[in-house]
Amino acid sequence: MKNFIIFHLSRNKDLAEKIANIAGIPLGKCEIDRFADGEILVRNLSDIKGKTVYVVQSTGQNSSDSLMELLIAIDAFKNSACKEVVAVIPYYGFSRQDRVARKGEPITAKLVAHSLQAAGADRVICIDLHTQQIQGFFSCPVANLETYDLFGEYFIKRFKELGIKENEIVVVSPDHGSDVRVRDLSSLFSHADIAVISKRRPAPNQSEVVGVVGDIKDKTCLIIDDIIDTGGTINNAVDAMFKKGAKDVFVCATHAVFSKGNVIDKRVKEIVVTDTLQTKLEGVKVITVANLLANYIMTE
Amino acid sequence: MKNFIIFHLSRNKDLAEKIANIAGIPLGKCEIDRFADGEILVRNLSDIKGKTVYVVQSTGQNSSDSLMELLIAIDAFKNSACKEVVAVIPYYGFSRQDRVARKGEPITAKLVAHSLQAAGADRVICIDLHTQQIQGFFSCPVANLETYDLFGEYFIKRFKELGIKENEIVVVSPDHGSDVRVRDLSSLFSHADIAVISKRRPAPNQSEVVGVVGDIKDKTCLIIDDIIDTGGTINNAVDAMFKKGAKDVFVCATHAVFSKGNVIDKRVKEIVVTDTLQTKLEGVKVITVANLLANYIMTE
Amino acid sequence: MKNFIIFHLSRNKDLAEKIANIAGIPLGKCEIDRFADGEILVRNLSDIKGKTVYVVQSTGQNSSDSLMELLIAIDAFKNSACKEVVAVIPYYGFSRQDRVARKGEPITAKLVAHSLQAAGADRVICIDLHTQQIQGFFSCPVANLETYDLFGEYFIKRFKELGIKENEIVVVSPDHGSDVRVRDLSSLFSHADIAVISKRRPAPNQSEVVGVVGDIKDKTCLIIDDIIDTGGTINNAVDAMFKKGAKDVFVCATHAVFSKGNVIDKRVKEIVVTDTLQTKLEGVKVITVANLLANYIMTE
Amino acid sequence: MKNFIIFHLSRNKDLAEKIANIAGIPLGKCEIDRFADGEILVRNLSDIKGKTVYVVQSTGQNSSDSLMELLIAIDAFKNSACKEVVAVIPYYGFSRQDRVARKGEPITAKLVAHSLQAAGADRVICIDLHTQQIQGFFSCPVANLETYDLFGEYFIKRFKELGIKENEIVVVSPDHGSDVRVRDLSSLFSHADIAVISKRRPAPNQSEVVGVVGDIKDKTCLIIDDIIDTGGTINNAVDAMFKKGAKDVFVCATHAVFSKGNVIDKRVKEIVVTDTLQTKLEGVKVITVANLLANYIMTE
Amino acid sequence: MKNFIIFHLSRNKDLAEKIANIAGIPLGKCEIDRFADGEILVRNLSDIKGKTVYVVQSTGQNSSDSLMELLIAIDAFKNSACKEVVAVIPYYGFSRQDRVARKGEPITAKLVAHSLQAAGADRVICIDLHTQQIQGFFSCPVANLETYDLFGEYFIKRFKELGIKENEIVVVSPDHGSDVRVRDLSSLFSHADIAVISKRRPAPNQSEVVGVVGDIKDKTCLIIDDIIDTGGTINNAVDAMFKKGAKDVFVCATHAVFSKGNVIDKRVKEIVVTDTLQTKLEGVKVITVANLLANYIMTE
Amino acid sequence: MKNFIIFHLSRNKDLAEKIANIAGIPLGKCEIDRFADGEILVRNLSDIKGKTVYVVQSTGQNSSDSLMELLIAIDAFKNSACKEVVAVIPYYGFSRQDRVARKGEPITAKLVAHSLQAAGADRVICIDLHTQQIQGFFSCPVANLETYDLFGEYFIKRFKELGIKENEIVVVSPDHGSDVRVRDLSSLFSHADIAVISKRRPAPNQSEVVGVVGDIKDKTCLIIDDIIDTGGTINNAVDAMFKKGAKDVFVCATHAVFSKGNVIDKRVKEIVVTDTLQTKLEGVKVITVANLLANYIMTE
Repeated sequence: MKNFIIFHLSRNKDLAEKIANIAGIPLGKCEIDRFADGEILVRNLSDIKGKTVYVVQSTGQNSSDSLMELLIAIDAFKNSACKEVVAVIPYYGFSRQDRVARKGEPITAKLVAHSLQAAGADRVICIDLHTQQIQGFFSCPVANLETYDLFGEYFIKRFKELGIKENEIVVVSPDHGSDVRVRDLSSLFSHADIAVISKRRPAPNQSEVVGVVGDIKDKTCLIIDDIIDTGGTINNAVDAMFKKGAKDVFVCATHAVFSKGNVIDKRVKEIVVTDTLQTKLEGVKVITVANLLANYIMTE
Repeated sequence: MKNFIIFHLSRNKDLAEKIANIAGIPLGKCEIDRFADGEILVRNLSDIKGKTVYVVQSTGQNSSDSLMELLIAIDAFKNSACKEVVAVIPYYGFSRQDRVARKGEPITAKLVAHSLQAAGADRVICIDLHTQQIQGFFSCPVANLETYDLFGEYFIKRFKELGIKENEIVVVSPDHGSDVRVRDLSSLFSHADIAVISKRRPAPNQSEVVGVVGDIKDKTCLIIDDIIDTGGTINNAVDAMFKKGAKDVFVCATHAVFSKGNVIDKRVKEIVVTDTLQTKLEGVKVITVANLLANYIMTE
Repeated sequence: MKNFIIFHLSRNKDLAEKIANIAGIPLGKCEIDRFADGEILVRNLSDIKGKTVYVVQSTGQNSSDSLMELLIAIDAFKNSACKEVVAVIPYYGFSRQDRVARKGEPITAKLVAHSLQAAGADRVICIDLHTQQIQGFFSCPVANLETYDLFGEYFIKRFKELGIKENEIVVVSPDHGSDVRVRDLSSLFSHADIAVISKRRPAPNQSEVVGVVGDIKDKTCLIIDDIIDTGGTINNAVDAMFKKGAKDVFVCATHAVFSKGNVIDKRVKEIVVTDTLQTKLEGVKVITVANLLANYIMTE
Repeated sequence: MKNFIIFHLSRNKDLAEKIANIAGIPLGKCEIDRFADGEILVRNLSDIKGKTVYVVQSTGQNSSDSLMELLIAIDAFKNSACKEVVAVIPYYGFSRQDRVARKGEPITAKLVAHSLQAAGADRVICIDLHTQQIQGFFSCPVANLETYDLFGEYFIKRFKELGIKENEIVVVSPDHGSDVRVRDLSSLFSHADIAVISKRRPAPNQSEVVGVVGDIKDKTCLIIDDIIDTGGTINNAVDAMFKKGAKDVFVCATHAVFSKGNVIDKRVKEIVVTDTLQTKLEGVKVITVANLLANYIMTE
Repeated sequence: MKNFIIFHLSRNKDLAEKIANIAGIPLGKCEIDRFADGEILVRNLSDIKGKTVYVVQSTGQNSSDSLMELLIAIDAFKNSACKEVVAVIPYYGFSRQDRVARKGEPITAKLVAHSLQAAGADRVICIDLHTQQIQGFFSCPVANLETYDLFGEYFIKRFKELGIKENEIVVVSPDHGSDVRVRDLSSLFSHADIAVISKRRPAPNQSEVVGVVGDIKDKTCLIIDDIIDTGGTINNAVDAMFKKGAKDVFVCATHAVFSKGNVIDKRVKEIVVTDTLQTKLEGVKVITVANLLANYIMTE
Repeated sequence: MKNFIIFHLSRNKDLAEKIANIAGIPLGKCEIDRFADGEILVRNLSDIKGKTVYVVQSTGQNSSDSLMELLIAIDAFKNSACKEVVAVIPYYGFSRQDRVARKGEPITAKLVAHSLQAAGADRVICIDLHTQQIQGFFSCPVANLETYDLFGEYFIKRFKELGIKENEIVVVSPDHGSDVRVRDLSSLFSHADIAVISKRRPAPNQSEVVGVVGDIKDKTCLIIDDIIDTGGTINNAVDAMFKKGAKDVFVCATHAVFSKGNVIDKRVKEIVVTDTLQTKLEGVKVITVANLLANYIMTE
């Protein structure tokens, strides 16, 4: 396959190997050292002169180190006079800091984009960015591959196995950020309804409450989100849904950060995530994004 | 007030004059020519050497010309060796094209940001950007001033006048993009509920339907949006709301594009907008953002 | 022919099709929407990954919109990960604003160059730029193809048909900007003389007069200019020339803006232009630049 | 005068001292070393932290060294953390290479502009640029101060002394590049005529001849040009003018390169230049541009 | 003191407070959050509009996180529209990777420089950079303050207390990188000699040996280095020196990384470092660089 | 060989021809004019569209002119729309000014790097840079090819011819900058020792003395340096070495500037240099770097 080579760094060994295998691209070799003082050194050991280099690295799970590793690797590849570096970032860390939410805050997702380009990234491939606008933080082309088809395919089959009719299903956004995901996923089912979990202050100076906007009584609820991190958002949503009479709750999310482990409410029937982050947790089902990435790369 | 000067171009004469007046900043003079072939020439006539230049221009209502006028003016100010140019863009045109929504599309809002910086803008001040992430399309500082406080203040007083109790109010987002605005505005009332208008396909290959997520029966509904353009989104929402038993509907929106004139459903009790675009339409109430901008500038 | 694809936007459909035909390059497909509020959206519909994209668009005839359309298209092509974008701009709008003629003015031709590069143009091809120095406003390669050979070829044949001897011909510059064009065109004839129309104040505080520098009495005059816009410059020249005893006047110009239609003095025998702008006017002969462009592209 | 400091390098010691004197700005001190191998070192010896630094250096008379000296000085000033560096370049070397005149040529005037900005120049002040478009090669503000007023003032007085009437004067451009200068200078006299020296091939494959376009018989001719370099252009013009019956010839030019010394035709009555280049030649009268520059700087 | 404000992040609280105190600059306040998943958020809480912001942060001791914290803070300060950000980086992490030492390696010190500028740093102040050339990795001004005077002052007094004569002293470079430091420090003593520890292979394919170049027998040796990290280099040097008959060994180094704690050979009489990194180790004497930094800032 | 073409300018005709020959790359043709006033014009005469252009030019021996010639050539090549320009700079002029050695100094080696990139260089190949860190002054890939293998090969053979045993050899650095070269060269011999020439002040306010650190008595000394310029450093070293009892001295250096001719101490047995600069001097042996460069290029 053309003049391509694919590398992984510390975060996505399994995923990169799967992609290489599906797409028939050779795996490159590099050496990653972490010195006693914490500094990272990445050294390219492959012949990449004139080649298109794909480097797969999620920048989560110790975000600063993961990002730094990626930046250093890009510089090393560039020094070896490759043709171009395509940063494949399945999970884009710092993506939630994508706007000045409160006065005095940074836009870290933009800062990361600028650092990647300063290091020499020529193109970027991401999976299900927290907001699509992050593409615009780059001045190079960014492909943002979406996962709702993967989840739709999985749950259509699963609900059929479980004898759940599609008109008993409500697709739920656990906050105001996943509305588009809910719309896209729900449209894959026949007659599925939607609902939104809403956190807001009922009046000034009162504490925030979690409400359910939409009718979920006696329904099978399928929560979709992009990231599960501490699990707090999901657990609040689950709790509010059962209080409103939900029959069953399933959860799917692209990025399995799980920074506190799997602490998801045990009443949840199933939790389904992807392998954008290398995760192995009891009670969490993993779908791979390798085909999604390999197919994209194979059309290049 | 320091070494400041403020200019308007073709779009926001009244607003710029109000800001100049409130903030005590002199108004600059420039000459804008449009030649027979449509080319624009902006010539600075004021002494601006070493000064901070504020140039107020919304880039809507003939967006290409408005933007071009602004870019040309910035270049002219820079050539006159001013200290810095602050582009005050009350309505940021092309803001809805802020992501690659479908394959093959541009990110025009990013393109506009890059053009403004290429022309020489040092800082930018906007009002209620379509999405907050647009700030990250710039590498210079961008202030995004929000208007929900203005609308809250207006309607709290107005509903009191009309004898409408706050717990009879539902704040409504006419689509999935104004959820944050709904949350922020609703929190200014006591016990106001929220609802979302949801457009989606009930099943693959069926046509899109407009639904109301949340309970609005017999309620006074206050729709909030950032932009009223053709009015289609609002009218669809109003229609759906009356079908679901809404008692009354009020509408507020920051940016009054009204590209087809005021074609808003006549059942709407009141339409309130701001003067980010210079508009004069029968049946549309205008609140000024002059204080918002003047106060921001006065703290500099 | 290699990995090339050629697009037109709104301005040069016919020209682009001719080039595609001559050079044997496939025509790409894109969708151009103009929304009710005037915003433009260009969406690429062709597979351009890894290809060299030629996009043909003159930025005159509604200059701001034409330019904006081109910038947006370039961004869309870049997002589709093409190899490079070559902006083919037969008529380069805003080119007459290429210097600070009076204090306080912009250099719009430079601003346009910077915007094109900010949008992602990798190379540019132009026809007969108003001044050659505009090439230097870009930091990417710019080819500036000249048209005097086309006009020379046409008029040598035409004057022969009309029985006009070459030593009866005077090539005339209608102002001080086309001197080089006059020199180049006149050298294609045997023994053709030259003249310059000169506008200047005879003394301070007197109004400008149009004079003819050079001898044109009883001669066949061939005016050459780059742009015919309102026609004022040409008409003033024609008038002065007949007053000085010219026998006949022919006019040729590359760019047919004609912003007030064909208002050229009826005494002019023939007006010849090119198709850098898509024009159809009574009494104006059009020569195509398609071969010029196609030949250039075919050597790449 | 504010927080200004002015430096000269090797080329314009006298001019810089005059400006400092007129404008009341202190002269900075720097050390310029030329090593045995030809490398140049400029070291700043003054306290310039937070100051606006004016550095005066023409980039002619050994152009490469003069330019390199200026670039190195700018870097040294920047390292000393001054507020901004204003490059005052009275004679802008390489300015005649301002377009791709023949295939395969560079645009050196643009290259120089980019190098100056890469070195850190924040603004530029020039005198009578070869073409005004060179301003657009920079992305920072460029002031281009013109000298025709200085020449007008001088010759109005001089011709009066010599009893030459203004309507006996013809202002002459020695080639097609100084037409605008001729127009500007002639308009300062009452009833002065103009003429252009035209070099062209009378027919293909014949050798170039020098002609005079316009009537100069028995007139006092005043040639104006921007640069006198080898003197060839002027001498050709003078010769053609006397052949056409000129009574007297005077010459003025801004930049006195005189790379072959003063070889100007002895029939010329007077040669007047400015001190943009430090020159001392028998038979050449020098007018200073110090006031022009000092006045410009004093308005900052 | 002017319009200055100074911030510290996680690494140099004590040092920043000392500088603020000495220079009389107010300390700014910012909030640093580390989320469960490791992402960092820095939020500025001070009014910094129009101010020069000094932010003190060494990028060692968990280098990736320290650097990321600094980059994020710079972005946050820039968003708050300060006048300029001066990054004060007492210990510049990744500085040892300042060249492509082996094929395939990155130049991380350059990458860090580019990231700092991409984030918005306007100027940089460092202490005793690993190599002075790192200044050239930036295109903004970089001040590199040196510490050998501090060490010289300390040891001149100390050796006097201990009755060691200056001609008994040999200043020693523990490898080939500190030769300039040795030369500078040794010149502060009267008649001190110098020596270099040399690591090399005596012949191809033999293992590296540590040798002492220079005469140290019965001398008091003072090793100077920029960084003590694992201590290996120092310990090898100490060992080699005692084998060659050194009488006593003292050690001084600017940056106290000590990534394995104080594992320095117990035969060393004294270890002296500075507070560029916040360190507290048994048996290590700390001299502050606060005066060095404060004095530099006070001259601005 | 692929789509490569190689050019020389004024400095390295012989070397470029050798490389072209070895690597089998065609030699391009360009015209270099030097005008009477010293301005340089380089015009490309070859068809280079879409090709990788190698341009060989050392920037020493009249450094400013050599550099300017190279910059202008790069611009000319870029205008001809080549694919990329690789600047092959065997001797990188201004490399010794690679840091702010004294307050107020520039970093000229960085300035040169920035100018080369501003002109359009895509990659750079150098030979034995004065310090390796200069690679980091570029943001494009820089290959730095080293010469110690060439010298090692030569002297191993030479010393064998002369009957000098390898353990009688001491490799000597003539100052503190060539330590790494000494280490690398010495490791090619069996049992060769090393020494360093040290210039320093024995005490404050005393004049600098030259000392020898290391034992050279009765040894055959081989000095290695990167540059021989005036020869002063070498001659001081040679003198000190003979005073300390050296038996014989050989000298090798990569770059033969010899700005004062060959003034090396006649006691030196042999002087060996490379052809990075075109030199022909009595008593100086030249080894070519053509193979080194050709081999590097052939792997591309």
